[in-house]
Amino acid sequence: MKLGSKVRKAVFLIQDGIGGRPRKELEGLTELEAAETPNLDRIAADGICGIMDPMAPGIRVGTDVGHLTLFGYNPLNVYDGRGPIEAAGVGFELEEGDLALRGNFATVDERMFILDRRAGRIREGTEKLASALDGMRLDGNVTVRVVPATEHRVVVVLRGGRFSSLITAVDPGAGNEGGKLPLSKPKKPDFKVASYTSDLVNKFTAESHRILKSHPLNEKRRNSNKPPANIVLSRGAGMEIRVKSIADKFNIEAVCIAGESTVLGIAKLAGFRTLTHPKFTANIDTDLQRKADFAIKALADSDMVILHVKGTDVLSHDNDIFGKIRFIEKVDEMMGYIVENLPEREACYIAMGGDHSTPGSLGTHSGDPVPIVLSGPDVLKDNIFTYGERSCAMGGLSRITANEFFLSILDYMNVTYRFGA
Amino acid sequence: MKLGSKVRKAVFLIQDGIGGRPRKELEGLTELEAAETPNLDRIAADGICGIMDPMAPGIRVGTDVGHLTLFGYNPLNVYDGRGPIEAAGVGFELEEGDLALRGNFATVDERMFILDRRAGRIREGTEKLASALDGMRLDGNVTVRVVPATEHRVVVVLRGGRFSSLITAVDPGAGNEGGKLPLSKPKKPDFKVASYTSDLVNKFTAESHRILKSHPLNEKRRNSNKPPANIVLSRGAGMEIRVKSIADKFNIEAVCIAGESTVLGIAKLAGFRTLTHPKFTANIDTDLQRKADFAIKALADSDMVILHVKGTDVLSHDNDIFGKIRFIEKVDEMMGYIVENLPEREACYIAMGGDHSTPGSLGTHSGDPVPIVLSGPDVLKDNIFTYGERSCAMGGLSRITANEFFLSILDYMNVTYRFGA
Repeated sequence: MKLGSKVRKAVFLIQDGIGGRPRKELEGLTELEAAETPNLDRIAADGICGIMDPMAPGIRVGTDVGHLTLFGYNPLNVYDGRGPIEAAGVGFELEEGDLALRGNFATVDERMFILDRRAGRIREGTEKLASALDGMRLDGNVTVRVVPATEHRVVVVLRGGRFSSLITAVDPGAGNEGGKLPLSKPKKPDFKVASYTSDLVNKFTAESHRILKSHPLNEKRRNSNKPPANIVLSRGAGMEIRVKSIADKFNIEAVCIAGESTVLGIAKLAGFRTLTHPKFTANIDTDLQRKADFAIKALADSDMVILHVKGTDVLSHDNDIFGKIRFIEKVDEMMGYIVENLPEREACYIAMGGDHSTPGSLGTHSGDPVPIVLSGPDVLKDNIFTYGERSCAMGGLSRITANEFFLSILDYMNVTYRFGA
Repeated sequence: MKLGSKVRKAVFLIQDGIGGRPRKELEGLTELEAAETPNLDRIAADGICGIMDPMAPGIRVGTDVGHLTLFGYNPLNVYDGRGPIEAAGVGFELEEGDLALRGNFATVDERMFILDRRAGRIREGTEKLASALDGMRLDGNVTVRVVPATEHRVVVVLRGGRFSSLITAVDPGAGNEGGKLPLSKPKKPDFKVASYTSDLVNKFTAESHRILKSHPLNEKRRNSNKPPANIVLSRGAGMEIRVKSIADKFNIEAVCIAGESTVLGIAKLAGFRTLTHPKFTANIDTDLQRKADFAIKALADSDMVILHVKGTDVLSHDNDIFGKIRFIEKVDEMMGYIVENLPEREACYIAMGGDHSTPGSLGTHSGDPVPIVLSGPDVLKDNIFTYGERSCAMGGLSRITANEFFLSILDYMNVTYRFGA
């Protein structure tokens, strides 16, 4: 039988930060190697395995860059800070020339010292606070859009001027509270457009404080002993991203199921439909059963379902060895359930990978490759029987990049084009 | 325990031209496979192995390009002939727009036929001969700097004009003596800047002969039946190189221990401290014990020590099968001594590789990959137990480039940056 032009479907599991390094506590195994994963192992045994570098061997990437490469982009061409990705994540469409930043509602005192970078992780009323700032005019021509995101987060967009993303953050970063509010500066003193941009950002910050400090909602928070959300801190400046829709490029219907706004934002940029739910927490308490059900259902009317889980990365950052093992085992159960309940299982591909490695011993992302698998019809099965960093390194896919892995999945799905005649 | 931001140290052994091809004389083994190397094998057994292409599979490189890639550069961006690297090697700082060439003191007869390309490998008095030429003015504006290097070698620098490196050599090349002195020409006849440059080089050659032939030192050499150093031949023209310091980029203290000026020159460009000694001969009689002691000592106050040995390449060019085996076995002893005497051995990485392969049967560099190893804390040890071309090809690092290998070492040292957030 010839496949011809028929498109085959695929489910692609992305375990964030899945790759690890050997642990003394596990007699030299990694968390993934030590976990009991009969279902992931069966997928590996049925498929072709390999290892994957997000960009290139030895290059560390963030979750944003890791997913850009996994979804078919070259981040060197498209990446300009996290702001535009967050804007896509909340569904705010940037116009040409817009500058986007990630923001937090935060708490400062009268001397402008930062008491809480997240205003007590405020959740309620943030739409009202954002709306009090949204549409602010600066310098006559520039409009500021302020769009609420999850919890204390907002997206801040400057529109109507000539901007540069080469500016520093109005945010001391996680764990650095207590000091004076930093001002935005151009990354080099003689960058004129960046100087103008950082001035605007500083004006916005001051205005946000002037407006929010007397907002009735903050009056209430003070009365109930909660830190007032009396300023917006911003970071991750980036100019609007113009990217080709990957879904359009390959003429596929793809769906991304995730809790994390960064992943959802990149999926939207790529032209994928996104599915999320308040119980998809981008953490270890996410509702894996519901994700599985969403995936099975989504596959009925789409070509590719991308299923992202974040817990593996969260637990790696915390160096929680046994927590990571337990979470991987839950993901294993989820995949077992998906495989069992997939319609047309025999005709569907299962791909597994991650956006980068996060060895718990390092406590942050590393440049190590990520184990990958592609199983399904016609795949050149190798003799690897377990899903792990070292078993997959011996597999038939050898060592490829995230872009190359994504394209290989699409190629088996039969949606790629021929280069040449 | 979390590693956090701690920097770990590394020793990186580079065996020049280490890779070979199977030899009938060794029942199909390579020299490296046939050599008894218990220490290199133990490092391989403790580490993760792979094979490495200097640039890409099938591409032959020189020692210069091989080391540029090993030290983190893309030679396509920075390489413009050997001259600038030799200038860095002798510590001569090029200015913007300078053209640098490698030169030899040589012997010609009255008809300008080349009798000896190296003037009997002259060693004594070369500073005086160079100084008789240094500062020469050509065409009014152009100054020529002549800087002595090892033995018969000099660096020639043109300064003060608009130059091009697209010119041919005033040198027939090794083994081509007896013919008439070739003149420098532009690589294409209509290259105007190159025509001007080759005219200047030819004028310098003629002037060098006019000045040197009557130099008192050559009078003496003639009287003691030695070939006079009565001309400078030049080759390897290249414009001054502007490169970023790799040491600055990753904020590391790196030390390169070598005898060969090319390697030392590239290390200097990369911002590495260089350590050499008259007994580091860049040949088979180099003082390996002293190199080992230098390495152990240098590691105390630096992050990375790069240890280069040249003998493997020299013996491969000579197709000396058993000489290469013996030299590798001496390097093995040296590495055993280093491993035993390293301070904080458990916390230190040992990396091994080479700049390119030099199969003795070919007698020159080939495009074959080079076996590599990275051993040390947290490394994903594979099941390779010997250091060899074919054993390493089965290793967990798979096949990567020299740049990627260097970055992977830096990533384990924990000095790389994250791309993205």
